[in-house]
Amino acid sequence: MAENDVRSNRCSEGMGYVHCFADKVKRFPGLAGRETWKVGKEDPRRVIHSFKVGIALTLVSLLYLMEPLFNGIGQNAMWAVMTVVVVMEFTVGATLSKGLNRGFGTLLAASLAFLTEYIADAPGRIFRAVFIAIAVFVIGTMTSYVRFIPYIKKNYDYGVLIFLLTFNLITVSSYRIDDVWSIAEDRITTIAIGCAICLVMSILVFPNWSGEDLHNNTISRLEGLANCIQVCVREYFNDSEESTCQDDSSEDPIYKGYKTLLDSKTTDETLALQASWEPRYLRYFHRIPWHQYAKVGAALRYFSYTVVALHGCLQSEIQTPKSIRALYKDSCIRLGEEVSKVLRELANSIRNNRQFSPEMLSNNLNAALQDLNSALKSQPQLVLGSKNGRATNTPIQAVQHHDQKLEEDTRTSSPSVKNIGSSSRLGCRSREHSRELTKKVLRTQLSKIAIVSLEFSEALPFAAFTSLLVEMVAKLDRVMDEVEDLGRMAYFREFEDVENGDKIVVTCEKPKTDIAQNDVPSAGSE
Amino acid sequence: MAENDVRSNRCSEGMGYVHCFADKVKRFPGLAGRETWKVGKEDPRRVIHSFKVGIALTLVSLLYLMEPLFNGIGQNAMWAVMTVVVVMEFTVGATLSKGLNRGFGTLLAASLAFLTEYIADAPGRIFRAVFIAIAVFVIGTMTSYVRFIPYIKKNYDYGVLIFLLTFNLITVSSYRIDDVWSIAEDRITTIAIGCAICLVMSILVFPNWSGEDLHNNTISRLEGLANCIQVCVREYFNDSEESTCQDDSSEDPIYKGYKTLLDSKTTDETLALQASWEPRYLRYFHRIPWHQYAKVGAALRYFSYTVVALHGCLQSEIQTPKSIRALYKDSCIRLGEEVSKVLRELANSIRNNRQFSPEMLSNNLNAALQDLNSALKSQPQLVLGSKNGRATNTPIQAVQHHDQKLEEDTRTSSPSVKNIGSSSRLGCRSREHSRELTKKVLRTQLSKIAIVSLEFSEALPFAAFTSLLVEMVAKLDRVMDEVEDLGRMAYFREFEDVENGDKIVVTCEKPKTDIAQNDVPSAGSE
Repeated sequence: MAENDVRSNRCSEGMGYVHCFADKVKRFPGLAGRETWKVGKEDPRRVIHSFKVGIALTLVSLLYLMEPLFNGIGQNAMWAVMTVVVVMEFTVGATLSKGLNRGFGTLLAASLAFLTEYIADAPGRIFRAVFIAIAVFVIGTMTSYVRFIPYIKKNYDYGVLIFLLTFNLITVSSYRIDDVWSIAEDRITTIAIGCAICLVMSILVFPNWSGEDLHNNTISRLEGLANCIQVCVREYFNDSEESTCQDDSSEDPIYKGYKTLLDSKTTDETLALQASWEPRYLRYFHRIPWHQYAKVGAALRYFSYTVVALHGCLQSEIQTPKSIRALYKDSCIRLGEEVSKVLRELANSIRNNRQFSPEMLSNNLNAALQDLNSALKSQPQLVLGSKNGRATNTPIQAVQHHDQKLEEDTRTSSPSVKNIGSSSRLGCRSREHSRELTKKVLRTQLSKIAIVSLEFSEALPFAAFTSLLVEMVAKLDRVMDEVEDLGRMAYFREFEDVENGDKIVVTCEKPKTDIAQNDVPSAGSE
Repeated sequence: MAENDVRSNRCSEGMGYVHCFADKVKRFPGLAGRETWKVGKEDPRRVIHSFKVGIALTLVSLLYLMEPLFNGIGQNAMWAVMTVVVVMEFTVGATLSKGLNRGFGTLLAASLAFLTEYIADAPGRIFRAVFIAIAVFVIGTMTSYVRFIPYIKKNYDYGVLIFLLTFNLITVSSYRIDDVWSIAEDRITTIAIGCAICLVMSILVFPNWSGEDLHNNTISRLEGLANCIQVCVREYFNDSEESTCQDDSSEDPIYKGYKTLLDSKTTDETLALQASWEPRYLRYFHRIPWHQYAKVGAALRYFSYTVVALHGCLQSEIQTPKSIRALYKDSCIRLGEEVSKVLRELANSIRNNRQFSPEMLSNNLNAALQDLNSALKSQPQLVLGSKNGRATNTPIQAVQHHDQKLEEDTRTSSPSVKNIGSSSRLGCRSREHSRELTKKVLRTQLSKIAIVSLEFSEALPFAAFTSLLVEMVAKLDRVMDEVEDLGRMAYFREFEDVENGDKIVVTCEKPKTDIAQNDVPSAGSE
């Protein structure tokens, strides 16, 4: 497409239209060839899918081409061909959703059409025509309106369309053909055959699962974001001159890291919806909570807006001198690395279907935050207020003083959590408590950085950068929560502390309500 | 949906399954009724559209129900019914795109099918069957593969699908029916009739234009963002206590302002694509540059990430004491108001199809920035470095010193621009120069704020807030550029300075290349 633009630009600049057109035609085969090749190289499953469609179509054509099969089914074999063309989709979930929608839509429409015919059967011919026309109008209007309802539009749009189509075909046909029953029967049979071929081809022959795509997308987005933050922080403290305002941000490796994530809402939701049609179960016949994946995606998207703002600091036209940045380089890079590590750990947790230990991640983050804090404190430029910033002369400091005690509580409990972790069980209750404490510590760190770092000059843009980095830690919490929920809902394996060789068992009650909730939309439709 | 969740939660908690199901059934009519009513109330055009579909279906049924019409067309009238059901869409653009895709797809497939039949005609029956099966396989595979190419997928997906469908139907039928010609002819005629009915209904009877939706969406998003920033800044300086961390951000009026914008990419691009099929022209037969609207949307989305970060400052757990914020309240609020005013001005520019004056907007923004700057300077807490921050002892200050001269240039030219504006013409060249200068001033302001505001303590979170606010001004530039381009491409009326009663004529050469570029995708398809 980009080449296309360049070409058309050149065309309109100087050359005549004929020349330009000739140029276009000459370039077309090369361009088309390259584009075609790229599509297959990007995802070889596409090539396989294309062959699958070809085979399915050939199979369904045999219904018509082979004498014995044709004698059984006849002209209606066309409907099977049509069904295959329309229903066969790339993933199993999409095919199932379309196939079942088509099947149920047809059945429902046929029933209603016969009811209509039964009512219209009694009186004369003119009346019958008028009755049919009215029925078509009423059902047409109602069905079109129903398609605007978000719930229907999201789940059953295609089914409703097919319902309308079949209803009209049968009702209108019934006016001139007496034996509509047998036609409808044949048609439903052939549609069923078509659907069956599609389903067999997509489930049994090299199946592509929407759920798998969603799973992999989530992992790669977590990792992309992790890289992105790492590069971003490193580049900020990089000595070589390059962080000027780049307008062509499409080339940027950082931009690449979050680009797909920002606009992933539609993709994620479609995949989650399709995956919910797929017949894949966890042990004990619990469904995989695909909608939780979409929620993880939403939390990640929310998180990524902070990353965009952080990236903005790099591209900003105000910059803190390198000399000042260098003072806090190590602590900031460490915090950035810790955040990246957490994201990678979450990605691994999803990839390996095992739970992670929120305390350990929180502890590390916490340590990095404290490190940054002490770096801010230890610099000679820093002149703190009276009593090392703990005199209760401003409201914030009063709050801080209160938090300080909590922090000390946590500090003593933090190492003990680690020790306990390697030998004993941590119930949910105590875990919640520990996270609550960690949050308190985080808040204290935040206010300390706020107060402490302000005493020296020229650091405003750096302050904004640090502030966003710390903000990011706070927002990471929501992502961690969602992934933790996912782990519980999908019965991930329990967390094992590999370093200590011991096991920290993170037990929780079965989240029955959540699973039930996730089952609702798909259970209603089958 | 939310009620649904609540209900299913309650269900799984205590009651038995039967009770729960009964409860669901009992609640269903009320829920469905409310939902149905809401859909129509939100957008009454939906009700009208439903009636249009009903009427179109009734009209097309008459082909079958009325004796003289049926004699002309016969059984193939079914294809007209099918076409209407499938092609009729909400907006003119979508209907046209589907209708034309269906038409061309059918024609192309018919030609290819006859070519195939002609080749397969010569030898024996078995060979013919094999040949047809191979043709179906090859075309099926190739077509499915072509649908993965992004350009095809975006513009002609439906056409390719119909091509495959029709090709298969005709090729396979030709095996058992001799007179395929006449069948194909009838089928094409009826499809044409179906398409014609759809187009007449959607273009002539209460048409809904995708372009209009896109236009209105862009305006309402600009205004939503303007409100959002205004509320955001005001709330930050609000004295009443409410800015604690709100997790239920879905309720937030600020969140509402940018919520739809964040995920608007798909909607915008679909609307722009559909709009490009709509036969609406500007004067001189230039097309309306719908793709530029999508670009404005992209710039706005990019801008909105900063708004999200700004909103994050409100929800953050670190807060600067109110007493300090109060000192800069007026300047910050003024800057926020100016940014909002610019966004509203852009919205009005698009709404009224008239260009805006970038200089005037920039000047106002500039004045607000200087105001903030002097506010930061004037406070007694502030202790500036030697020589009022202009000693060239750090690199940034050296740069600043250089910029200072530029700023003085601009300061003298700024009022003159205003004066000249009311009486004489500003060519593009000089306008570009003036904007370049404005940018320089902006940069100077930024570094000044950076240095100046750092001398007093406890302001880090406030510094981040201010920094983001100023960053926002810098990013606003891209939005302004895109809207300006839109104005030029769509030949908006020239800007009139209403206050002075005079006219500032903003003339530019016709952007021929841009228009040509925008024509490419749709010109190729008609």
